[in-house]
Amino acid sequence: MRNNPIGVFDSGLGGLTAVREIQRIMPGEDIIYFGDTGRVPYGTRSRETIIRYTKEDIEFLLKHDIKLVVAACGTASSVALPVLYDKYDVKIMGVLEAACRKAVSVTKNNRLGVIGTAGTVKSGKYAELINELSPKIQVFSAACPLFVPLVENGYSESKAAELIAKDYLLPLKNEKVDTLILGCTHYPLLTKVISDIMGDEVTLLSPGALAAQEAKEYLERENLLSDKKSGTSEFYVSDSVENFAELGGTFLGKPIKSSVHLAEAFRQ
Amino acid sequence: MRNNPIGVFDSGLGGLTAVREIQRIMPGEDIIYFGDTGRVPYGTRSRETIIRYTKEDIEFLLKHDIKLVVAACGTASSVALPVLYDKYDVKIMGVLEAACRKAVSVTKNNRLGVIGTAGTVKSGKYAELINELSPKIQVFSAACPLFVPLVENGYSESKAAELIAKDYLLPLKNEKVDTLILGCTHYPLLTKVISDIMGDEVTLLSPGALAAQEAKEYLERENLLSDKKSGTSEFYVSDSVENFAELGGTFLGKPIKSSVHLAEAFRQ
Repeated sequence: MRNNPIGVFDSGLGGLTAVREIQRIMPGEDIIYFGDTGRVPYGTRSRETIIRYTKEDIEFLLKHDIKLVVAACGTASSVALPVLYDKYDVKIMGVLEAACRKAVSVTKNNRLGVIGTAGTVKSGKYAELINELSPKIQVFSAACPLFVPLVENGYSESKAAELIAKDYLLPLKNEKVDTLILGCTHYPLLTKVISDIMGDEVTLLSPGALAAQEAKEYLERENLLSDKKSGTSEFYVSDSVENFAELGGTFLGKPIKSSVHLAEAFRQ
Repeated sequence: MRNNPIGVFDSGLGGLTAVREIQRIMPGEDIIYFGDTGRVPYGTRSRETIIRYTKEDIEFLLKHDIKLVVAACGTASSVALPVLYDKYDVKIMGVLEAACRKAVSVTKNNRLGVIGTAGTVKSGKYAELINELSPKIQVFSAACPLFVPLVENGYSESKAAELIAKDYLLPLKNEKVDTLILGCTHYPLLTKVISDIMGDEVTLLSPGALAAQEAKEYLERENLLSDKKSGTSEFYVSDSVENFAELGGTFLGKPIKSSVHLAEAFRQ
């Protein structure tokens, strides 16, 4: 069991930032990644549809004898996981918990900001979980629906991104939050723009990286860390393999040359 | 047969602008609309996936005894229809042909611009068809991947939209096109921004409205126009019915109160 792979899924490419972190801190682990590139984005869809897609993603990974599922998608984690956790025998970790725990320990003024997709913000799950951990913390949220398309279309460092980011973020800045959770795997790619607006004194937290750390602690605790020297990675997608290999490298931090497959259910 | 409905599909909401035009010029027609809101957008996906989704959309409409299919989606029309036209007994009309014929008759300097999604521009179908109609015309294309998210998130008339539109359109303006095809159903909602950049002397063409006109001419020719006084409309979607009813009104030009259903294949 300890040498079984870790399963990671995301609505698309963004979850590769979590894979990158898992590879960095647990180089011996095999990884099976599923990116639902044929149905991305999740963040604008209805609750029912997000739950249906997330269920299919998890069940796809379960076919590969994995020892742990990491939901690297902020929307799936906040909208779907709360109703899916108990349905499967394997442990499922989302990106919420680790980020909330970290945020609660980091804030000094007890004013936290959370940004995410429309689905994530509408779910209210970040605020709920943070207030379970510490009822005295005030949480301010903002949906940033244009951040993902801006990143995916090469506008991460543009005047347009700055203007749109100001609309989204100034209300949070005015509330004087001292910590901001970047609740979507794409947002760390906008760190410069976000940090210029929020100011250096606001701590930015990336849930993907924190979830990878949390996964490591879980595997250590359960004696499930791989005893191999170096692990392999397999990537599955629901849209074209070529597009994924081409763009995925940006998120993974190195080229994806092989091991990309079209998931069976999405073949013609 | 003449009183059977017209089937219209789109990747999402944009095709409702074509429905609006059909209702205006053919008020006696029944309409069955399918919006693939659970998998929108099509424009960024691979050719194989766009073909697979378009096939499913057409086959969904065929279950409703329709007399004609109108593909209101620019991406489906240019990427998928060329390989699907012959596969079905019912007539299928895309948004390309009507726009190309009109553009060829409107241009005076034989320099045409086409804007659309990445998929549409990559297919090269507009240029191909225009040059079949008139080989002396030069076609200049530009993909505008951020236009759909800008429209859908309330940024149609913003400084950010202006800046991004300048990046996309100035190369076409510099080529001195005198006619511009807005090759995606969302783009007419950006008419003000586009027209400010291109100038009053450039004619903007909306394929959705032109396709509705072409559908009317086809039904007249084939003696298939409805003889009813007023028709009904039924809307099917693959994501939540509520979201569609709420946002769809903007595109249809009047509120959608009833007759919205979740398509069977997309139920849990």
